Amino acid sequence: MSTLDTSSTGLAALLSPGTVRSTVLPVVRQQVSALEPTLARVCSYHLGFTDEHGDLSGAANGKLTRAALMTAAAQGVGLRPEDVRSQAAALELLHNSTLIHDDIIDADELRRGRPAAWKVFGASLAILAGDALQALSLQMVVDDPGPGRAEISCAFAEANRLVLAGQSREFTVRLGSGAGIAEYDRIVEEKTSALLQCALVTPALRAGSPEHVLAALRGAGRHLGLAFQIFNDVEDIWGDPAVTGKPVRGDIERRNPSLPVLAALSAGGPAGERLRGLWQAGGTTAAHLQEIADLTEEAGGRHTAEQRSRDHLDSALEHLGRAGLTPAASAELTALFDRIVNRTA
Amino acid sequence: MSTLDTSSTGLAALLSPGTVRSTVLPVVRQQVSALEPTLARVCSYHLGFTDEHGDLSGAANGKLTRAALMTAAAQGVGLRPEDVRSQAAALELLHNSTLIHDDIIDADELRRGRPAAWKVFGASLAILAGDALQALSLQMVVDDPGPGRAEISCAFAEANRLVLAGQSREFTVRLGSGAGIAEYDRIVEEKTSALLQCALVTPALRAGSPEHVLAALRGAGRHLGLAFQIFNDVEDIWGDPAVTGKPVRGDIERRNPSLPVLAALSAGGPAGERLRGLWQAGGTTAAHLQEIADLTEEAGGRHTAEQRSRDHLDSALEHLGRAGLTPAASAELTALFDRIVNRTA
Repeated sequence: MSTLDTSSTGLAALLSPGTVRSTVLPVVRQQVSALEPTLARVCSYHLGFTDEHGDLSGAANGKLTRAALMTAAAQGVGLRPEDVRSQAAALELLHNSTLIHDDIIDADELRRGRPAAWKVFGASLAILAGDALQALSLQMVVDDPGPGRAEISCAFAEANRLVLAGQSREFTVRLGSGAGIAEYDRIVEEKTSALLQCALVTPALRAGSPEHVLAALRGAGRHLGLAFQIFNDVEDIWGDPAVTGKPVRGDIERRNPSLPVLAALSAGGPAGERLRGLWQAGGTTAAHLQEIADLTEEAGGRHTAEQRSRDHLDSALEHLGRAGLTPAASAELTALFDRIVNRTA
Repeated sequence: MSTLDTSSTGLAALLSPGTVRSTVLPVVRQQVSALEPTLARVCSYHLGFTDEHGDLSGAANGKLTRAALMTAAAQGVGLRPEDVRSQAAALELLHNSTLIHDDIIDADELRRGRPAAWKVFGASLAILAGDALQALSLQMVVDDPGPGRAEISCAFAEANRLVLAGQSREFTVRLGSGAGIAEYDRIVEEKTSALLQCALVTPALRAGSPEHVLAALRGAGRHLGLAFQIFNDVEDIWGDPAVTGKPVRGDIERRNPSLPVLAALSAGGPAGERLRGLWQAGGTTAAHLQEIADLTEEAGGRHTAEQRSRDHLDSALEHLGRAGLTPAASAELTALFDRIVNRTA
């Protein structure tokens, strides 16, 4: 499990064609360009606005998944996209702050098909740039004077806290004794679900929705994150790098908690036991990773993971149904959930 | 100019003996201990609560300069220390988040006489720990439901933004073309003054003080930061490492913007010109650094810097006088300003 990035192309276009991108990206661009010039340069590069020399670039900006969720959820509680524009931009910035630091932590040299920010500008400036995006995100939210300001600020602060807790918990598991499935779920809920929940809940906080709506949206975000991350783990092992945009088996090479592997390990049996030895031995050659993949599949880990991802997606949609959003927004979010989890074009 | 840390001992004791420490430290400790366990361990170590094994430690926690300023300013606008306890703790956490990251950026191996967090736990966990303290600080502020919540949240977010802008600006100057005195002042206002201003202004925001009081306190914090930083630059070159607690001439070795050097360079003359060549050549042996020190003094840089530090302290006190705080608090802050700048016991 690595930090998720739904880059590549096309997702935002699903949702009221171009609305998300044209609503949110100009705010992101304007806010980032107003940073101290060196920070602006690093952040604009990371976000695909510019190349390493500061010249305009046509690089991918990311799919704006969280902004798309927030925009659709806004429509679902009777708001316009503009009513949460600043928050949607802020959430994308918060997400990107974690990506910049994560690439340093994981020594990942590529992000969205280009050298990661730390490879281009050095770790020191990348640390400051990640800090600056985190700070900017929170500043945009606390400065926005609209309805629900305090509640939305708290939701962002809590999501920020949870993501960092999840990253640290994952890092600790990776270093140490390994995780069980309960620990895996907790890490994903913190690291992945928290920002998706923030995306879904923010418009409801702005609209003053009742608690049962907030609870339903939180539940939807929680299960969406789990479905997404588990599918991502399956793709890390058996996916096509041309589709995922990431090196094959990078997560298991790094011994990140991976649900197919955890499921195979907990299944026991001879394949599971051989897998345990191989997993703990730490080999990272292609042959090692292939054998881990084969044993994981043989022990039923792939099947279990695929089933769990589908179950979590079903649960996410069930919670979404309970939120009582407008039918058009519910349909839009349903399609969006499906695309987020299954990366269909 | 390095990131300032007023560690060692004794400052807080000045101010209503033990009040700051006994009011603020328990909140800091409790908040940090509630972090995800690995983050809690790194942060507790950095803050001197525990050693690297997580056992209780009697290490220095820092002087709580910013908490002391906030507590005294609270008394000055008719509040009790408890009324800004959470904000005072949050400001110390924000300051410490910058120290943890700064030590990584500068590859500083020592902090408050102990190995820096990144030396003990690795850069990855230190990055996450700094992020977590930044997030926690903002969360404490936005979650606090007391008066002036929105305004205080904005003040913290702005201070956070400014510190990062200043750090990046300093880093850029260090890499590149060097700074003039105007650029130096701007960096210090961002990197050093911003948190001091936040400390002084927060109680006034809580008390609903009028704009002229806020402006006076902002001015006091601005000049206090400049006076402090310039004195620090003088101490870096000519101070006693046993008093400063830092390696002698670490800042000029690193070619950080340093006011005595900038003043000597801008003075021109033969000493200034020889200094320019030496400064740009980048030599870092003790002999090089000694020659830089001697030429800086010969060109009048030390004298100018000492004068500027005194002038800024006078201006800080002048602004403080305009804030119309209670006489007792004004006297306390006057003594505190003097001790912060001159590091008198």
